[in-house]
Amino acid sequence: MHIMVIGAAGMIGRKLVEKLAAEPDALGRGIARLTLADVVEPSVPPVYSSISTALAIDLSTEGGAESLVSSRPDVIFHLAAIVSGEAEADFDKGYRVNLDGTRALFDAIRAESRNEPYFPRVIFASSIAVFGQPFPEKIADEFFTTPLTSYGTQKAICELLLADYTRRGLFDGIGIRLPTICIRPGQPNKAASGFFSNILREPLAGKEAILPVEENVRHWFASPRSAVGFFLHAARMDTSLIGPRRNLTMPGLSALVGEEIEALGRIAGQKAVGLIRREPDPVIAAIVAGWPTNFDARRARELGFTAESNFDEIIRIHIEDELGGRI
Amino acid sequence: MHIMVIGAAGMIGRKLVEKLAAEPDALGRGIARLTLADVVEPSVPPVYSSISTALAIDLSTEGGAESLVSSRPDVIFHLAAIVSGEAEADFDKGYRVNLDGTRALFDAIRAESRNEPYFPRVIFASSIAVFGQPFPEKIADEFFTTPLTSYGTQKAICELLLADYTRRGLFDGIGIRLPTICIRPGQPNKAASGFFSNILREPLAGKEAILPVEENVRHWFASPRSAVGFFLHAARMDTSLIGPRRNLTMPGLSALVGEEIEALGRIAGQKAVGLIRREPDPVIAAIVAGWPTNFDARRARELGFTAESNFDEIIRIHIEDELGGRI
Repeated sequence: MHIMVIGAAGMIGRKLVEKLAAEPDALGRGIARLTLADVVEPSVPPVYSSISTALAIDLSTEGGAESLVSSRPDVIFHLAAIVSGEAEADFDKGYRVNLDGTRALFDAIRAESRNEPYFPRVIFASSIAVFGQPFPEKIADEFFTTPLTSYGTQKAICELLLADYTRRGLFDGIGIRLPTICIRPGQPNKAASGFFSNILREPLAGKEAILPVEENVRHWFASPRSAVGFFLHAARMDTSLIGPRRNLTMPGLSALVGEEIEALGRIAGQKAVGLIRREPDPVIAAIVAGWPTNFDARRARELGFTAESNFDEIIRIHIEDELGGRI
Repeated sequence: MHIMVIGAAGMIGRKLVEKLAAEPDALGRGIARLTLADVVEPSVPPVYSSISTALAIDLSTEGGAESLVSSRPDVIFHLAAIVSGEAEADFDKGYRVNLDGTRALFDAIRAESRNEPYFPRVIFASSIAVFGQPFPEKIADEFFTTPLTSYGTQKAICELLLADYTRRGLFDGIGIRLPTICIRPGQPNKAASGFFSNILREPLAGKEAILPVEENVRHWFASPRSAVGFFLHAARMDTSLIGPRRNLTMPGLSALVGEEIEALGRIAGQKAVGLIRREPDPVIAAIVAGWPTNFDARRARELGFTAESNFDEIIRIHIEDELGGRI
């Protein structure tokens, strides 16, 4: 089986590739070829060095998508995107990369099938940013997508394209609406959502972290491990069970910031909790107040997607996967 | 005020222009200039001949949108599209005209505002084809858009673009999801939905019509007069009341085919009803079974959009507007 990961240099892309390296049968069939693409050349896991191709390629440039698809991968994980803040700051770039790049990929698959039959599975990373407030207390699977960012708009449009191209038999698509990923590894970043991870990751490493919102802020989370699990399950599953509604809100954990902190205390002690410094930031608080806090995600659960059910699990996963099992 | 109608040669476009000719103050402000565009040159109402421009132009061809928008209309009614059957039969043409053409229009407006401030109102003709079954008994305003046709997909994507461009202050957009228009004037056509109009229009003219489905088929209707009213109201209304959810399911009448026939009997007598010939067509019945049958449409009603409440009204409107008041 030929696997392609587009956006393989990103956080989830890297973890997905690492998982495929650690568990070569994670997709249920052997990997005969691996193509990793991103705007910067992604690194290749040593175990796959003989069967891998790493490409620095931009889907949204002329011919980029065609050249990728010409190698006819069986499974395409499409995780490439510019993030919300950048898509909002740069209108043209956001639409070019997040919308036109994805459409170019879909159209390249369609063009490829004109030569000889070609029907890859395409797993698209979408986002809960397709939803815009006001929300019901729990967002059900049939709630409408009224994004309040250009990023969310681009994701929602790609979801529609994915469903239509799938309906027309051009490929076998699944859209995966990711929760906020927590605990994000690496350095604290300036994303408005960064603090959800910072207040756990930094104290676990003995460092201070800033909490800019109240403890009663609720949000929707899944671990990086769950995110990788969503993509693997989407690649393996029987898609005939999904029907034409191909975009799925992934399961997650609805939790308060206060619950994050309590879990940190249980696992790492009150000294770790003491490293969280409260610095209320009304700008961040206002942004976060516009985000969804809870989903039903029934369809995805029924289709076998799973996530964490409490923050203790999320913290333990971080300790196992990022800290070698020790704090 | 400079008014532009794109798609002015279509059924609703023509009726909208006729209305503006019959009631020059229908928009609450005088019309100083009228630009009518379509892929074929639209006809100009005599009363506006001195202030009108008629253009044969295709939005989706290079430079088409820019040349239209360069005249800086204050209100743009965008009704141009290829229909559902054609968009399904011709994938490329559907996406090119219905999606790329609309996006080109939106981008041309954005480009025009770079020279000097430009903030037109844009009223976009969408469709209940943005919804796909299974449906709840009554589709509420927050139900998700999961189209089962490429036409519906293209309309749903343009709705998302319209909302995002509006949110970013690029224009003042409103999306109008039209019910099935009944009674469509003119000749019987081959659209799967044609019979809903045929079984009234033809008998009213003393001619036979074919009914391919059972009388217990339910559907969602508004008259051509209501459709024109939706567009006029959208052009006049205070858009600050709408908020960011700019696409509105228009009010309509949920009725059975049997109720159409009963109304025909009340207004035109049993002889007219006798002109309806039952010829069950399983293909048409299956297509129709996939269509929405009823909506709540609360938001649009609260915002002042109105439609008919029974089929007697719909038939009387046809008699007044198409048959000179007499049958």
